[in-house]
Amino acid sequence: MSRVLLVSNSGRPFLAWCRPLIGEFLASEGGHTAGADAARRVTTLAFVTAANLGDERLYWGRARQALEPPPPEGLGLTVTHCDWRAEPRGTLERADALFVGGGNTYALLRRLSEAKLLDPIRERVRAGMPYVGSSAGSNVAGPNILTTNDWNVVALSEFRALGLVPFNVNPHYLETDPAMAAHSETRDDRIAEYHVVNDNAVVGIEEGTAVRAEDGVAVVQGNGRVKLFQRGEPPRWFNAGEVLPV
Amino acid sequence: MSRVLLVSNSGRPFLAWCRPLIGEFLASEGGHTAGADAARRVTTLAFVTAANLGDERLYWGRARQALEPPPPEGLGLTVTHCDWRAEPRGTLERADALFVGGGNTYALLRRLSEAKLLDPIRERVRAGMPYVGSSAGSNVAGPNILTTNDWNVVALSEFRALGLVPFNVNPHYLETDPAMAAHSETRDDRIAEYHVVNDNAVVGIEEGTAVRAEDGVAVVQGNGRVKLFQRGEPPRWFNAGEVLPV
Repeated sequence: MSRVLLVSNSGRPFLAWCRPLIGEFLASEGGHTAGADAARRVTTLAFVTAANLGDERLYWGRARQALEPPPPEGLGLTVTHCDWRAEPRGTLERADALFVGGGNTYALLRRLSEAKLLDPIRERVRAGMPYVGSSAGSNVAGPNILTTNDWNVVALSEFRALGLVPFNVNPHYLETDPAMAAHSETRDDRIAEYHVVNDNAVVGIEEGTAVRAEDGVAVVQGNGRVKLFQRGEPPRWFNAGEVLPV
Repeated sequence: MSRVLLVSNSGRPFLAWCRPLIGEFLASEGGHTAGADAARRVTTLAFVTAANLGDERLYWGRARQALEPPPPEGLGLTVTHCDWRAEPRGTLERADALFVGGGNTYALLRRLSEAKLLDPIRERVRAGMPYVGSSAGSNVAGPNILTTNDWNVVALSEFRALGLVPFNVNPHYLETDPAMAAHSETRDDRIAEYHVVNDNAVVGIEEGTAVRAEDGVAVVQGNGRVKLFQRGEPPRWFNAGEVLPV
C-alpha cells in the first residue's frame, strides 16, 4: 500500500505547473491506504537533493521558494533539506512527506544507498507517507533505474531502486527527440531493447505530466500524455484522468 | 602503440560515407607502429555484432554487403562474423583487422567480457592490428563507456572498456538543438556531470565524422566536427585534418 506522485518536470519556474497536483496529493487522505502515516496531515516536507551534482543547497532553496509560501504562490509547507551527507534518516523521520528531486538518477540512487535511506523510505511509504518524485526522483520509485535518460557518470553498479510502483519510468518522454542524430535510436527503440532482457512495464511520462499511484491504481495527471510500454505489446497512449493498466 | 579508427555512424546505406576512410585506414601500413601485425596486409576483417540486441546475422550481412564487393562498391575484404557465442577468439586470431559495430554499448561490453575477448583484442591492437569501431564500437575503445548515449538495459555493472585510446567517446554528438524540449539536459550538461567525478577527456564525434588515432596522435576525419571536452576547460571544436590534443 503506498501513495506516490511521479512527475516529469524540468520547466521554469520550478514546479509551477505541478504545484496544484502536489498540493492536492499531499492534502488527500490516502483512500484505502492503512498505516501509521496514512491520515497524517502534511506540514513538513523533506526534500532530497541527492540527484543534483551541483549546488544542493541552491536546489533546496528553489524547492523552498516553490513550496513554502502560502497558497496560491506556494503550498504553505515547511521544506526541510534531506541531505544525504547530514543525518538524512533523522530528517526523514521528522517529515510528513518526502519529495525526491531531479538531476542525475545514478548519482541519486548511489547516494540514497550510501546514506542507507532506501529501506527507511520504503518503510515510511508502506506506512502511508506520501512520496513525490520529480524526474530522477520518479525513476528511483520504480523497480530499477535502467530506463532513465541520464548517463551513469558515477559508475553505479547496482540498479535496483525503491520499487514503490511495479513499473519503470522514462521521464521527459518524447517520441522523436530533436537532440537525436538522424537514424539514431528513439526512446521507443531503447525501451524495446530494455524489453529484450526485462519484462516489467515502462511508463513514458511527457513533460508537464504526472502519474499518481495509490494502492496499486495509477492515474495520469497534468497537461500531457503517458505512453505505456508492455513487453510484447504495441505501446499505448493514455491521457489525463485515465487509469494505466499496470 | 595502436591503430584505431573511431567512427560516428548511423546513416544509410550502412557505412557508405566512411567506407573510403576505412579503406585508407586498413591499407595504410601503420606509421611508426611496430609489432607483429603492423605491416600485415588486411584481407580478412572480423566483424563484431555483439552490440546488436536484434538479429546479429542480419547485421553481419549488412557489413558484408558494405565491405565485401570489390571497390568502389565495397573494399574487397572477406568479412567474417566474430560471434561472441561461437568461438570468437578463433575468429579474431584468423583476422587481419577488427571492426566492432554499433548497437547497445552496455550489451556489447558485457558480451565482449563474457566471451573473454577484451584481453585478446587489447593484445592484437597493441601488436598493430587495425581496430575500427562504429558508435558503440567507438565507445568501447575508450577507458570506459560511461559517456555512451545508450541505456544500460542489460544492467552491466563493470564499465572499464578496452582503453585503446585515453579519451572517452560520445558518438552522434549534437549540441543543443533550439527545438529541444525546454530545459532538458544537453550532451554538454551530461559531459560536465561526467567531469564532476571523472577526469579524462571526452570526445564528441558528430555524425559522419571519425577520429583516427595512431600511436597517440588523434586526427579528425570525415564530414563533420569533433568537440573536445577537457575537465575544467571550455570545450573546443576541431575540424577534419586537425589533431586533437589528447
